[in-house]
Amino acid sequence: MTDKAFQDYYPDELSHCYGCGRLNIDGLQIKSYWDEDESVALFQPKEEHMAVPGFVYGGLIASLIDCHCTGTAAAVYWEQGRAMDSDPPIRFVTASLHVDYLAPTPLAAEMEIRGNVTEITPKKVVVEARVLSEGKICATGKVVAVQMPKTMATIVTGENL
Amino acid sequence: MTDKAFQDYYPDELSHCYGCGRLNIDGLQIKSYWDEDESVALFQPKEEHMAVPGFVYGGLIASLIDCHCTGTAAAVYWEQGRAMDSDPPIRFVTASLHVDYLAPTPLAAEMEIRGNVTEITPKKVVVEARVLSEGKICATGKVVAVQMPKTMATIVTGENL
Repeated sequence: MTDKAFQDYYPDELSHCYGCGRLNIDGLQIKSYWDEDESVALFQPKEEHMAVPGFVYGGLIASLIDCHCTGTAAAVYWEQGRAMDSDPPIRFVTASLHVDYLAPTPLAAEMEIRGNVTEITPKKVVVEARVLSEGKICATGKVVAVQMPKTMATIVTGENL
Repeated sequence: MTDKAFQDYYPDELSHCYGCGRLNIDGLQIKSYWDEDESVALFQPKEEHMAVPGFVYGGLIASLIDCHCTGTAAAVYWEQGRAMDSDPPIRFVTASLHVDYLAPTPLAAEMEIRGNVTEITPKKVVVEARVLSEGKICATGKVVAVQMPKTMATIVTGENL
């Protein structure tokens, strides 16, 4: 796997996301990396992340897919043109998210989220994901990621990205 | 609106969900009610629920849609046949979740999640959702909810529901 997580390239002002921001101390702080031609993130659910005792709640699975795939979108987009930490920063947001829950996801085991980029256009990146636990696919997902709207980015960073 | 939330009819052993379990003290504890022919839940995001400063992260929106729609599925299913708190309990889980993010959702305002049941069969309930903030639709969603698999319910409750 690569050494530095995609999310750790985000500039400080774009690193507060509950799902993946390294500066959100209450958040999930997921970290995504390249593993050859796939992206991968590992996540250990906490006890409170249950749906029912012993199994992960669906919203966590959706959150992990979401942030892992937008991170993957940023990484693949950056790498097509320039270094990931070059200015101005590129940050993707989710246009749509789809999750199919295939099997209950154990709470005790580490989850593995794997992403595959299936489409890149100037306006969007499509990433498909698999969520595995104990070697079994528990969920699959698909995210259509788009660059953060300029109005949103301007409010956050004070700059017209 | 109705007086008692759908989720407050769930038996104790099925009330630990991070999204909607009344017994999960770390969770979101969302509450869904009937408002005429729609279901509605209100939710005030916390500061840490941000995507970027000022806006809600997508995983929270997905989580709220998920739990609101499975609650709506249980409510409509129960009401077709018997009282919501009669035994054995009926609990729906998510087979698939789709979210379209239409506009950034403000972090400061109360969110309103509204659900419409669009399909009921013996095996599934389909619920479509709108997420509003400050009177504007920020996201729409669709959940296909199915009754909790017997294997999962048996592990949790010790009973063959």
